[in-house]
Order: sequence, then C-alpha cells, then structure tokens
Amino acid sequence: MNALVARLRAGLPAEAVLTDPGITRSYANDMASFCAAGSPAAVVLPRTVEQVQHVMRTATALRVPVVPQGARTGLSGAANASDGSIVLSLTKMDRILEISAVDRIAVVEPGVVNAVLSRAVAEQGLYYPPDPSSWEQCTIGGNIGTASGGLCCVKYGVTAEYVLGLDVVLADGRLLSTGRRTAKGVAGYDLTRLFVGSEGSLGIVVRAVLGLRPAPPEQRALAAEFPSAAAACDAVCAIMERGHAPALLELMDRTSVRAVNALTHMGLPESTEALLLAAFDTPDPGPDLAAVGRICAEAGAAEVVPAEDAAESELLLQARRQALPALEALKSATMIDDVCVPRSRLADMIDGTAAIADKHDLTIGLSAHAGDGNTHPVVCFDPADADEARRARESFDEIMALGLELGGTITGEHGVGLLKREWLARELGPVGLELQRGVKAVFDPLGLLNPGKLF
Amino acid sequence: MNALVARLRAGLPAEAVLTDPGITRSYANDMASFCAAGSPAAVVLPRTVEQVQHVMRTATALRVPVVPQGARTGLSGAANASDGSIVLSLTKMDRILEISAVDRIAVVEPGVVNAVLSRAVAEQGLYYPPDPSSWEQCTIGGNIGTASGGLCCVKYGVTAEYVLGLDVVLADGRLLSTGRRTAKGVAGYDLTRLFVGSEGSLGIVVRAVLGLRPAPPEQRALAAEFPSAAAACDAVCAIMERGHAPALLELMDRTSVRAVNALTHMGLPESTEALLLAAFDTPDPGPDLAAVGRICAEAGAAEVVPAEDAAESELLLQARRQALPALEALKSATMIDDVCVPRSRLADMIDGTAAIADKHDLTIGLSAHAGDGNTHPVVCFDPADADEARRARESFDEIMALGLELGGTITGEHGVGLLKREWLARELGPVGLELQRGVKAVFDPLGLLNPGKLF
Repeated sequence: MNALVARLRAGLPAEAVLTDPGITRSYANDMASFCAAGSPAAVVLPRTVEQVQHVMRTATALRVPVVPQGARTGLSGAANASDGSIVLSLTKMDRILEISAVDRIAVVEPGVVNAVLSRAVAEQGLYYPPDPSSWEQCTIGGNIGTASGGLCCVKYGVTAEYVLGLDVVLADGRLLSTGRRTAKGVAGYDLTRLFVGSEGSLGIVVRAVLGLRPAPPEQRALAAEFPSAAAACDAVCAIMERGHAPALLELMDRTSVRAVNALTHMGLPESTEALLLAAFDTPDPGPDLAAVGRICAEAGAAEVVPAEDAAESELLLQARRQALPALEALKSATMIDDVCVPRSRLADMIDGTAAIADKHDLTIGLSAHAGDGNTHPVVCFDPADADEARRARESFDEIMALGLELGGTITGEHGVGLLKREWLARELGPVGLELQRGVKAVFDPLGLLNPGKLF
Repeated sequence: MNALVARLRAGLPAEAVLTDPGITRSYANDMASFCAAGSPAAVVLPRTVEQVQHVMRTATALRVPVVPQGARTGLSGAANASDGSIVLSLTKMDRILEISAVDRIAVVEPGVVNAVLSRAVAEQGLYYPPDPSSWEQCTIGGNIGTASGGLCCVKYGVTAEYVLGLDVVLADGRLLSTGRRTAKGVAGYDLTRLFVGSEGSLGIVVRAVLGLRPAPPEQRALAAEFPSAAAACDAVCAIMERGHAPALLELMDRTSVRAVNALTHMGLPESTEALLLAAFDTPDPGPDLAAVGRICAEAGAAEVVPAEDAAESELLLQARRQALPALEALKSATMIDDVCVPRSRLADMIDGTAAIADKHDLTIGLSAHAGDGNTHPVVCFDPADADEARRARESFDEIMALGLELGGTITGEHGVGLLKREWLARELGPVGLELQRGVKAVFDPLGLLNPGKLF
C-alpha cells in the first residue's frame, strides 16, 4: 500500500477509499466522447466535510492532483480522471439538510441528485427550476460545477441564479463559507458565483444554500410544425419580442424528430423541417398559447397543435427530452455541441450548422433551447472510419467558430472541461484568459484541483 | 501645472480635466454620512473608452490612486475621494448604445441614469427592474459598482441578475471584455459577476450588456395596518410561504410613517405600529390581493386597504419612497443601515432594532424591503451632541451585529465602502477575506483602484 493510500485511509473509513483498478477505472470518465481519461491512484467517497478536508490536506501535502466528481453525467470531460490523481466523488454526501418555505431556500450536500431535491421541495409547494436532461442522475454539486441549464432556462435561468451560498473546502483543506442565506447580499466580491461553473478547479463544494421558487401551475404546451428552421426562428423571435414568457421554448430539427420517432415510436410529424414546442406555466395559459399559436401561423407554421391537457403537454416534453439519446442511437459515436447565440441570430446558427453538415457530408441533428438561442448540434459519426471521424471533429469546431462569429459563446450550459479548452482561450481572449488564470492561482496556488480542465 | 495633470491633459480634452479645488471639492463625497473624504488631485470626465484607458495608464505610470464615481448617490462612502487621487467620473459616458426587444438586452455606457434607461426601454415594451430610490439620479455604472437593489427585488432580484456582459478598463489600461450578450453562457469563471458589487476596486466598467424583461402590467397595491412589527412580519412570512409573488412587499414602522406624513402631508395612518404595502403586477392581481388581504387580517391587521386603482397604488409607493428622506429630515444627521436577514428572522431584527433604540435613547426609524428581509434602520442624531453621536455609532454597529447573529448580512444592497469595512472583515471571516484580497491583487496588483474601500 503506497504512502498516498495509507495517508488517505488514516482519515477515512476503509470503504471510502477504493484502489482496485477494476473499480477505480469505472470512475475515469464522464459522458463526453473523445476526451482523454487517465487511471486514478485512488477513488475516495467521503461522507463528511472533515473527510473532504482530510483528502485535500493529504493531496496538498503529497502534491497529488484531485479530480472532483458528481454523477459523471457531464458532457465536456470535466470530471475525467488524470493519471495518478485522487478522484474525489461527492456522491455519498447526499443529504438534504433543510428546506424552508418561508425563506424559500434549501440547504443541501453536493451529492443530492437533482430530481431527488426537485421532488422533495415540490412536496412543500416549492420549485427548484434547473432541470438538465440528466436530472434523474446528476447531482447538485455537479450542476454547480458546470452551471447547468435545462429546459426551464428561458423563464427561470440557469443553476447560477439559484446558488446563494456555499461551503467550500479549499485546496489546502481550509473551509470557506461564502454567500448567504438571505434573499439579498452584497458584502464583498461575489466568490459564490465564481465557484458556479468553475468545474471543481477552485475548491470542493461541500454544502450549498439554494434559492427556491413557489411551485408554478402545471405546464400547458403546444407544438408547431414549420417548413424551415428560419420560419421557426422567426416565430421564436416574435414570441419573445412581443413579451411572452414561455416556461419552455424548444426546437427540434427533422433529423432529431425522426431519431426520436425511431427510438420511441412517438409518432411525431416527420414531414416537418422544424418542430417548435412552447409551454406556459401561468394560472391562465390560454391567452398566451393562443397568441403564440397565431404567431407561429403568421411565421409560416404548417400546423399548430395545442396539447389537449397536462398529460399531453408532458408527452411533448418527453419527446424533446429524448432528442439527445435518440441522436446518440443513430451512429456509434456522437459529439454534442452547446453553442449559444443571441436569439436574433438563431436562424443563422441553425442554417449555418446545416451547411457545415452538408459540406462535411455528415449527419448533424440539432435540438435547441430556442428561447435562449442555445443549440445542441449532435455530430453523428463512426469513429472506426478515420476520415469521417476527422470530418466530425472539424465540423464540431466549425460550429463553435460560427457561434463566436454570430456573437455567441462556445458553451451555454455544458461547460468547457477538456473538450473545449482551446476554444475557451479563443472566446476569452488573452486578457480574459490571463485574469482567469490569476483567479485560479489565488484559490489553488499549487494547481492541484482538476488540473488540465478549462484552461 | 504638475506632471499628473499635464499627462492627463495629453490624452483628454481640456474641459475633461478639472483641477480647480473649488470644483474638485464638490466631487469629494457620495451621500454617506461620516465617511472620510480627501482632496482629489484632479477630476476627469472622459467621454470614450480610449480616454478612460489613457487615465488608467497615466495612473499606473505615476502610481496615483483612482476613485471611480457615478452620480455619487451611494450610501457607504465607496465613491469618496482620497487625498491626491484622480476622481474618475463616468457621468459623461451616458449613451444608450442599443436596445433589442428580440434579444431582451440593452447595451449602455456606465453614466446612463437608471431612470433614463428605464424609460427608454419602457417605450419598447421592456422593463429594466432595478429601482434604487435614487433612480432619478444614480447611474448604471454606480448601480453595478454597488449591486444596487430597490423595491423590485422581492420579485425581480438585484442589479447583479441583469448584468450579462461588461467591458472593463483594467488598472493598467488594458481592455477586458467579459460575459456575453446571449441568454446563457458558462465559458470560464464568471468574472462579470465579480465586478458587480466590487465598488470600482477591480476595474472601470465602460460598457454593460444588461438583460431586460417584458414590461409587466401596472402594479396594484394594498396597505395593511398592524398593531406590531411582529404581526406584520408574520404576514410577510405567510405571504411568501403560501407562494405569492408580490412585485413589492414593504414595511414602514410608526416612526417612518409619521416622518413621511410630516414631510409630505400624505395622511398615512399614524396609529399603526407597522404599515405593510404589498403590490402585484400580474395580469389579474385580484385573487392575490384578496388572499394577501386575508393573510394580513389573520395575522392581526387592524385595517386592510386595497388601492382603488393604479394611481392610488402609485401614491402608496411614493409614500414608501419618501421614508428615507423623511427620516433624514427628522434630525440634523442620520446613519442608514442596510442589514438583510432571512425573512423568517425579520421580526427578531425589527424588534431587536427597537430595543437598541430604547437602550441608547435614540430615534431609529425603520423601513424594510420586508419580502427580502432587508431592513433600513435610520439612526437619527445630532452630531453636535458628542454623546448622542457616540450612541448613534454604537447603535449602528449593534444593528449589524444583530443582523449577523440572525444569520444575515451587513449589507443587502448599499455596499461596504468606507462605512462598513471593519464589518466586512467580520462577516467574511479570515479565510474569505484573504481570498478576496487575493482576487483584488489579480486585477489591481498596484492597489490603485479605489484604495481603502471594502477592505
């Protein structure tokens, strides 16, 4: 037993330190394709703040890198292990410590699964909006690490808006409390927000105070079939311009619709070039749905189909949630992009992505959080076909270049991880990158926390 | 003409560099009482980003501290000049560069007055929520510097939620672009948010991309008179616990009500111990107002008075907006606190503040953004009476200590500036303070930007 493992075991129960390579190997990757992953020296599964502090003190003493992990549902390689690292899985710290309806907050450990929290607060008439598609598996800690989004964002924003305060174990094992449990607070620099989206590179989140909302009424949805993505995007722009506040506003291209039908036999309309889903969760969604239906018709929708009831609305959302797995099932490999552009440029982004697919003779299915301008082009390919794999990577990069050109960002909600490191540098520019590295050095002067990610 | 002024004039028009002490003196203070202010060496009023860069390059070359200023309506001394400093007033950079209803953003220079922006976006059916009471004077740059709030926060949050992207001139004159103009974006650490509330200590904001919302319907308000603050706070907690989303939820104590009547002859009910104002800006506010009225009655309200119409609603809000000036008119001096506690502890905060006033035999009027748990106790005193002045300062500090004890923060929306420096250290603790100083050093290694503020 090596020195590292011995030292880890001195402050952790035996079952919390895994070293069997057959087991540790299973902690090497998140769900991103084509990101390098090494063999960790150990996987630790602490249950207390003190145990996390022990891990970080050990890592600092022995200069061993630490890779924090939630449920490893991330799509950018941010949770991938590096050789000889300690993988620090927070999944066993999964207690909901407090839910307060008066203060509209929940206090949780990082390993709480998103859906578990969502259901727990719903029982008290409350709502935790962030709903990444992996919400049945992903953890709050992971959501904070990647600043996750979901379908809700067009009305309710991303994870960042709901993180009020954090307890964080620093690289050297010290405990930082930052933020608040009050509705407002402006005391000093907003370090809390700095941790959101930092992909475990600044510290280990061990407790979070999350803001909640009152539970809204059930959603009522409609679907509209468009002869072109451009027409659907015109409708999206008009819906937002005229002041509607949909709880979701989602788009699926024909490739996605067909893929979902192939996977689920849902019978979505395959003749449509772009299927738009809009939903409202207000007490009286009728007038909004009617107005949105008219806007869609004016923008050229061939068909506008309001859901009959909440159950049918939910079915439409299920279809949208299946877009990603359905596209993944089309080919043996996929690369999932996450470019977000101003919604006024969404049509250019979608048409440009189609042109990139044509140019490279590839299948690129696209779904989008259209109301946010956030597209998820899924590049489908066979990695055994070297030329196709090369074209896939090229098109993946061209999609990001297009997004930046249109005034967008390379990542709306999936993060940077390993997958988009070079692209982050391009988006931030040299001044931004230098400052980001400076911030990193303040929190992690030895560079032990998730090294090689982000930058 | 000294070297500093000569060098400033080399890159600025003559009228943009003020050195007459009679004039520069008028730029020495913001609106905080009892905060030290020195004599600036010069006041500069740039109109372009390049001119701001010239100022910062000059300051760095000559190692001269720079104090950024908006309209100097701040309440914490954050904009107070220090001896020999360059006061950098951004008030001449006051252009609204863009308003987009489709993308729901505005792009503005820092000197745009809050109310000017609010009216400009309203013309396009849009809404910029942050509404500090100084909104007719204060600038967006100043709002960003202090992370200002207002009456809207209980529903719409503080300035921070609306700042999507920034252009910032760094201490050394380089230009940083950070953030985005998209609805979402998680590329790298959130440096944008770091600048919000940083009181000009990290860089000079020269351009901001602000998020907008669709304009809501006009507000409809009600007023409820309570026999005690505790009863009013019970109502506040029940309103929030039962899932209502008021656009404002404000409380005034008897001292504030009487002061407003004295100033404005509005005829508010002087027999009430606590006047609660609630308003809704939904399409159909009737059911919410009725439910809130019932909650108030159940909590012991002696009287519940719904406004007859929008005009009467507006009158109630005017009364609330007058609370601060009205209390300031009571005595020759005031100290305005800004403690925010979890709303479940609001009654303890208000009763505790009353006990502090009794103990020190002082008049302390209190108004509160009750829905946020954000109180503004106003300590009224005569600075010529040394003993009363001492008791005023002691009570001001005891109010902050009480806030921290109740799980709150020393500042909900006014910031730290000079007024609460010692208290910031206390709230953050040594680990937090060390990291905040580390972040400061990354952006401003020479310590030239607003030195002596915050820390």
